[in-house]
Parts: sequence; structure tokens; C-alpha cells
Amino acid sequence: MTNKTWRVGVAGLGTVGGGLLQFLADRPDFAPAGDSAVVTAVSARSKSRPRTIDISGLTWFDDPVALAGSPDIDLFVELVGGSDGPAKAAVETALKAGKPVVTANKALIAEHGAELAALAEAQGVPLLFEAAVMGGVPAVKMMREAMVGDDIDSVAGILNGTCNFILSEMEKTGRSFADVLREAQALGYAEADPTMDVGGFDAGHKITILAALAFGCAPNFAAAEIEGIEAVELLDIKLAKDLGYRIKLVASAARTEDGVAVKVHPSLAPLEHPLAQAGGALNALFIEGRRVGRIFVQGPGAGAGPTAAAVAADIADVMTGAVRPVFQAPSGNLKPFIAVDPSRTVGKAYLRIMVRDEPGAIAAISETLAECGVSIDSFLQKPVEGAGGVPIVLVTHATPESNLLDAITRIEKLRAVLERPRLLRVARI
Amino acid sequence: MTNKTWRVGVAGLGTVGGGLLQFLADRPDFAPAGDSAVVTAVSARSKSRPRTIDISGLTWFDDPVALAGSPDIDLFVELVGGSDGPAKAAVETALKAGKPVVTANKALIAEHGAELAALAEAQGVPLLFEAAVMGGVPAVKMMREAMVGDDIDSVAGILNGTCNFILSEMEKTGRSFADVLREAQALGYAEADPTMDVGGFDAGHKITILAALAFGCAPNFAAAEIEGIEAVELLDIKLAKDLGYRIKLVASAARTEDGVAVKVHPSLAPLEHPLAQAGGALNALFIEGRRVGRIFVQGPGAGAGPTAAAVAADIADVMTGAVRPVFQAPSGNLKPFIAVDPSRTVGKAYLRIMVRDEPGAIAAISETLAECGVSIDSFLQKPVEGAGGVPIVLVTHATPESNLLDAITRIEKLRAVLERPRLLRVARI
Repeated sequence: MTNKTWRVGVAGLGTVGGGLLQFLADRPDFAPAGDSAVVTAVSARSKSRPRTIDISGLTWFDDPVALAGSPDIDLFVELVGGSDGPAKAAVETALKAGKPVVTANKALIAEHGAELAALAEAQGVPLLFEAAVMGGVPAVKMMREAMVGDDIDSVAGILNGTCNFILSEMEKTGRSFADVLREAQALGYAEADPTMDVGGFDAGHKITILAALAFGCAPNFAAAEIEGIEAVELLDIKLAKDLGYRIKLVASAARTEDGVAVKVHPSLAPLEHPLAQAGGALNALFIEGRRVGRIFVQGPGAGAGPTAAAVAADIADVMTGAVRPVFQAPSGNLKPFIAVDPSRTVGKAYLRIMVRDEPGAIAAISETLAECGVSIDSFLQKPVEGAGGVPIVLVTHATPESNLLDAITRIEKLRAVLERPRLLRVARI
Repeated sequence: MTNKTWRVGVAGLGTVGGGLLQFLADRPDFAPAGDSAVVTAVSARSKSRPRTIDISGLTWFDDPVALAGSPDIDLFVELVGGSDGPAKAAVETALKAGKPVVTANKALIAEHGAELAALAEAQGVPLLFEAAVMGGVPAVKMMREAMVGDDIDSVAGILNGTCNFILSEMEKTGRSFADVLREAQALGYAEADPTMDVGGFDAGHKITILAALAFGCAPNFAAAEIEGIEAVELLDIKLAKDLGYRIKLVASAARTEDGVAVKVHPSLAPLEHPLAQAGGALNALFIEGRRVGRIFVQGPGAGAGPTAAAVAADIADVMTGAVRPVFQAPSGNLKPFIAVDPSRTVGKAYLRIMVRDEPGAIAAISETLAECGVSIDSFLQKPVEGAGGVPIVLVTHATPESNLLDAITRIEKLRAVLERPRLLRVARI
């Protein structure tokens, strides 16, 4: 073991960057593999903004790209965020200069991971991103390093704490999505522009990265099928519970003979299932491997403490001198990402059909479902005050998605049906 | 990345060794970091025993120590087992010869980890043991690598699948410990001599290793306080459930100002707690860190598939060339292990007191508890057929263990009390 001191440049001094500086200030002895790390230079949007950590002794850069290229740092930490722009330019600059890079930027890795991996591997330097997925839960390390002795068939979980918090609050307090979102924004749990979170894109970035690590293919965010929680209604949360399920934003990636399916959907998880029980801002993940079986991991997915600890663990990994591919295989050997046609997906589904309370409605619906080859697993009709009609809810047996969509289109046209039926998937967990 | 082929010597061809050979036969392309691994030499108790994998092309060694020292291997995998004897001699021989060692041997690491770490670090070669704890769940990697950016306060979990299976079966089928153990032995889930498992020693080895990784102290198996499940009675399983708990063999390690407490006890976990819900042969672990918060991980803790995958992941780690300490810090910097006096431990407890059904029994018991400073959280008196007396069960508020033991000694002497009260701890989870 050497006793080198690594000069670390940190671009971005928000929650995670501030947490990292605090961590290294609290732990001046941080040298898990012999070497130690000291932040010597920083870059952020505003130099003068009040901060809990004194940065006056550090070299200041207005431009993160200039920091990344500085000969006075040995390791670049990118916490700027965003899939393109300065974050990408800075990471490319550092890698081209032969500097190891640690980042928490899920959008960057999900959208440009393959090209950045090729660049890092050509330069022989690590590109690490533990903090990009599940905060302090080492999901990336588990997939990249611990699961190399296995063939992973699927991963599925709750990867966005904001959505999980909102859905949990809706159920607990009986308030609407819009109402709970406003509160979450006031409390700082949700961003002023919440689209990345509630639109499912943040979870989509994360599951794209996990899919690449699990299956040895290049990350392909564009191929992910993404639906957010904006349209989740309290009515569905209640009715799903009556049927024994809880609605969660489930991100999943599965490998079949046809290719890879990467999805984010509000989905029904059985109430007794660990994913249904992960409430509040928790993140949770199932990994299903052919040899290892099913592994479940759960923990806080965000926040300064967990995320900064994940960045620090990546810095420690750089200092060990380990040489491994950025994803599961060297970037030249990554398999092309072949997306499965979503309409060919087979799974159980939840349908809510609002009908006028008149004779024959159920008969017409069940006849239509039968014609489309959709069979029913459980069924509930329950008057709900103020719902503007009577909701009929049912959970189907496993059905090809195309049959389901066909049935929905036909049911919508039935005389007794008031609006397009609401479709939610039952999580395959 | 280089393209070296590592010649691997494997000592021990039981479940894990056979699984590893099968894995490398199934995955001839196994080269996660560029290098590849090929088993070239083996050692086992019997050369001629029928095996599913053909070993006729491999160099045979009668003596694992001779295999460990062979100049024709680059990496030594020790799957012989046992804390001393040939396993220890072989690992020492390999390390002294400057060869990386991968082992699944929890007893060896728990009992001799510090001296072996010193030897490995002096030689600058890795000593890895992921398969020693929780099978395919990367608990060791999580503690050693992912949690370096945190200060761990405690770890607690279910680390022995055999005990968990037996306790789950007792509850499910209403059969006695002895009865279920016999069945588990017939099914191959328990060894002919089950002491290591049911006596809590296997879990003790594992939690000793996790404590060393978590707290940066030398592993000290001798300081672990260990109680097995042999004396767990069906009656307590039932009564605990009436009080809202399930009995699990919980292994825990906690750091306080006074030192480190490492324990294995049959303990009560609240029914709704994830540890209570990990049934069958599952393993499960909570990690509590100051920055990261609470992380929970669960999976199959044994079996050829998971354990061989963990050994393969360690081989991959060796091939990355990473240089890190064997435990959390270089062996010269490991803190001395200061064990907390068990009598100073404070926690909730379950007491079952068998009494003659006569007036004044409850009054005498509650008076004695009050005199000893033990206050009661919940209380249950319930006639149980064939129990030979009436059981009074209670769960205390948090109490120093010394007060509890004092109370038990005094209660045992009360006229209405038939036998020494049964004490079980409530898990601090």
C-alpha cells in the first residue's frame, strides 16, 4: 500500500458536494487503502453563497471544465448534474487528461455511459458512479462486482424516494397527488420542477444503469418505457388496497430470449411483499440471479449523508488501483441493447372501469375481456362516493399487453362505460 | 486491462468447491476484468469419489498444503474448512508464497483473521472471504468497501440458514426442536453433527467477521457471547407470537463508548419487522451507519450456487489488482477489540415463569421484579395444556442485564414458581 495523497477536485457544491466536503473534514484520517484524499479545488455556480464548510482555502474555478482539466488535481468528482452541458464536458475533459472520475450523475451515465466508458477504458482510468443509484445502498457495486459470478435475469425495485414518499402520503392521509406534491415541495422533498422525479425519468435513468450492469449491454435510456405517478388517483390506491395490493412506482429490467425490457410504471405490489412495505422515502431492489437466487436490499436512496458516503466509497475504490470495466464487460464487448416490443410483454394487470349503474354493464365488460383473451383473477365492484359512476376493478391473469390494450379500446366504446379504463400493471416481483 | 490467465488451485471439493468448478466450466469466458481464471490443480479428501465434474485433467494433490505452495498455481482457493489444521496451514503457505487467497472459511477468519491479515498485507496479496458470510449476498464487500464512507454503529441479522429453517418449521408445524432437527438432517439441511449450526457458533463466526469489518477492530471470536437454539421450546414460540413477536436466532454487533458487544441469541423480533419475516433458510442483515442510515439486505445464505458465485466474485476481485486492507484498516492499525461486559447490556427481555395456579403468584413475581428495578411492558397469563403449570410471560422495558439476572434468581426461589424462569432477549433492531 502506498501513502499517496490524492488531490481531489469537486465540481458542484449542492447537497452531495457539501456532504462530501463535510465528510472529508470530519474524517481527516480517511485512508481506507493507505492513500488519503484531500479536496484541493472546487467549482460551483456561486462562489460567494453562504456555506457550512469554509472553501476559502481551496482553489476556485468558475468553470467545471477548467477544474476537470487542471494539472493540480488527481481525481475529479462531478456533482454538477444534467446529462449534457458542462457536466458531460467536464467528465470528458478529466478522462481525456487521464484522471479518474467519480460522479453521482445518473442522467449522464444512463444517456452517455457507453461512450464515456470507452473513453475511460482507453485511458485506463476508473469512472465510478455508486451515488447515482440508491444513495448509500451499494447497488452499483453489488451489480458490477459482487454479481459477476452470476447471470442476472431481472432487477426490480423502488428507485425514486420522492415518488415513494408521495404515494405513501397519499395512502396515509387520503390526499390527492397534487396536494401531497405541493407539501413535498414545501418540505424540500421534491424539486420546484418535479418532472424528473414524478415523471419517472429519474427512476428510468437508474434502472437503465442497473440494466447495463446486470446484463452486460450498453445503457440505453431511450429504450426505457416510462410512466410517472402524476396520473395515480387516490381512488386507485384505495381500490388496489381492497384487492390486496399497494401502488408503487416500480422500475424493472428483465432479460428474455427476445431482448431486454426496461420499464418504469406505477405498479401493484402485493401488500405482504417487501416492496409494498418499503414506505416513505426508502429505496428497495430485488436482484434475481440464476445461481445466487433472489437478493433484496433496501435503504435510504437520497440525502447528503448517504450520497456523500457513496461518493467517498468510490474515491476509496479509485485509491485501491483496481482495474475493471465501467459496466459488466469492457465497453468494446458490451452487447447491443435489444429492446423487447412492449406489446409482447406478458403480465397481470389492474383495470378500473367506470360504468353507469345499469343492468348488463358487467356482462358486456366480461364478454369483451373474454373475446380479447383476457381472463380475470379477481374482481371488485364497490360504490364510491363522488367517483362519478361505479368503479368496476379487476386484476387479470397474466396476459399479453397487446390483448389488454385491445380490450381497453373495445371496453371504452361500450355504452355503459363512462371513460377510457385505467390500466395499471401488477409488478412482476 | 491485461489478458493474463490465472492458474487457480482449489482445495476442498465439497458443495462449494464442486459449485466453483461447475461455474468455471459453464462460463469459460469468465473474465470480468480482462484476465481469466482456470482451475489447474485440486486437492480433496478422496481422489476417486464420484463427482459431477471431471477432474482427471487437473493436477491432483493429496495434501492441500502442498497444493497451496505449488509454483504452478497463481491463486489459492481454500474450501477445506475448520479453523485450524490443514486449512490454516494451507492458507499460510499460500500467503507466504505471495499468492492471493480466496476462502469460504468463516471459522478460520473469525479465529485467526488478524494474524492472516498481517501476513497477507506484509506480502502485498489479497485475502478475500466473501463466501464466508451470507453466501451470495455480498455482506463482506458491503462492509469492507461500500461502507468505508460511513461510521457503522451496529449490524444485526439472521446469519444461519439452518437455524432459521428449524425455527420456521417449528412454528409452522408445531413440532419440537429435536423432531425438526432430525428431519432437517434427513433432508441434508443440517449436518450429522449439527453443533456448529444449532449451537450458534457458525453465526458467531460470521458476526465476528462483520464486527471486525464494521468497527475496524481485530476479529475476536472468543469475546462473542453465544447461545444456540437447542433450548428453544415450542411453548415460547407460541407465547412470543401471542405477544406480537417471532423467535429468531439473531446475531448482532454493536459499538458503544464502552467497547464492542458481539452476540448470538435466540431473540424476539416484532412480527411486522423484516427480520421476523425472513423465513426458511433465508439470511438477512441490518447495517446501521451514522451517515447512510439503515440498510437491509436479504438472500439465500448457503448452497452451492450462491456460495460458488461469491467465490467467483472474489477471484474476479483478485484479478482487478485492487490493493486494500483485509479488514477495514491495515492490520497494524486495527483497534484492539474491547468487549463490553454483558451484564452491563441494556435491553428488553422476555421472561416465561411457570407457576402453580394459586393465589398470590402474580403479586409475588411483580413485587420481585419491581424490587430489582425491572418494569413490565406487556404481560400474558394463559393456561397451556400439558405445560406442567401455568406460564406467566412478560416482556420488560429496557433493563440492565444484571438487574434481570438478579430478578430471575430471586423469582426462581418464590414458593409458587416451579422452575428457573426462561429468559429470551428482545432483538435491538
